[in-house]
Amino acid sequence: MSKDKLTIGAILFPEYDLLDVNGPLRMFGALENVNILMISQHGDKIKSGSKIGNYTEYNFGNCPEFDILFVPGGMGTRKEVNNPVLLEFIKNQIPKVKYVLIVCTGAGLVAKTGLLDGKKATTNKLAWQWVTSQGPNVLWKKKARWVVDGKIYTSAGVSAGMDMALGFISDVYGRKVANDVALKTEYDWHTDPNWDPFGEKI
Amino acid sequence: MSKDKLTIGAILFPEYDLLDVNGPLRMFGALENVNILMISQHGDKIKSGSKIGNYTEYNFGNCPEFDILFVPGGMGTRKEVNNPVLLEFIKNQIPKVKYVLIVCTGAGLVAKTGLLDGKKATTNKLAWQWVTSQGPNVLWKKKARWVVDGKIYTSAGVSAGMDMALGFISDVYGRKVANDVALKTEYDWHTDPNWDPFGEKI
Repeated sequence: MSKDKLTIGAILFPEYDLLDVNGPLRMFGALENVNILMISQHGDKIKSGSKIGNYTEYNFGNCPEFDILFVPGGMGTRKEVNNPVLLEFIKNQIPKVKYVLIVCTGAGLVAKTGLLDGKKATTNKLAWQWVTSQGPNVLWKKKARWVVDGKIYTSAGVSAGMDMALGFISDVYGRKVANDVALKTEYDWHTDPNWDPFGEKI
Repeated sequence: MSKDKLTIGAILFPEYDLLDVNGPLRMFGALENVNILMISQHGDKIKSGSKIGNYTEYNFGNCPEFDILFVPGGMGTRKEVNNPVLLEFIKNQIPKVKYVLIVCTGAGLVAKTGLLDGKKATTNKLAWQWVTSQGPNVLWKKKARWVVDGKIYTSAGVSAGMDMALGFISDVYGRKVANDVALKTEYDWHTDPNWDPFGEKI
């Protein structure tokens, strides 16, 4: 296992998707050498699209540097693509971080910054049209549970974030570590990034 | 679909499991006629075993009545089985509510109250010995993703809570509604409550 301590910066915004965030972060939270920063524009409590929510400890002004930028999706993305403060924050982080992990419609936010242009990516299948319209120059792949292009990971909708998180853990810390997290969470990990019955259905 | 508006009372405690809570509640949050109350002993922010956490809006003294008692698991259960205030709160709710949904090691807390005695139930597979020792008179079923006994639903570990939540939604609102939630969350729902590779492995 890599001994590198990695810090994740998870970016939350109003009406983020509850499982996009807490599914993958539960997988990462099982690792001793991963630290998680919860960040939102104004800090404090933040409500997901399911009404209940998480609390964030940092705002865009006071958050420390991190190694992994984590961007979830959710219905709030439709409003946030018009929030220049959020887009600017994301845009500024991407060149600085070691990895970018994007779940579900979070790809719409990142695509809007232009920084996915020319990269392979996937996203939520029911929201396919809206997300892909945010980045016409992204190389969108419809049938995929998750996609890796260099340091950028994108996943399909909501639950796919957990498969991608375990895929990332496997890539960075080894398959044994990822299998162990899946076992401890009794999670039926779809280990094949090309497994995607939803991309076929929709 | 039943037109009944159901209110869930989700009980959080320090070091609850992040996915035990947010996985099932994301499934319920997709339903218009379900309301969720986040409750903890002291209210306010509460840290999961993954360090980050949710915020709760109610404490044991001021929470309104609810229809569904939701009890998650997590490492915190080991301490909370010795918290008489939490056990008393849970014990008082069970006879009053329409349904009880218990995820993972949350079964240890409820078993400790004695109110699972003589009932069929399951729990986390890695923590099997500890949880079952809290309720020697419970009819524990080792190979199960989730178990229903009357109004009480129990699930296996962590991720199993999502399968149980969809099973409950199917029982109460119909299979079509549950399938629709699984599709929208791109969740590969294990529809068979007897599916359990983890019960065999451990």
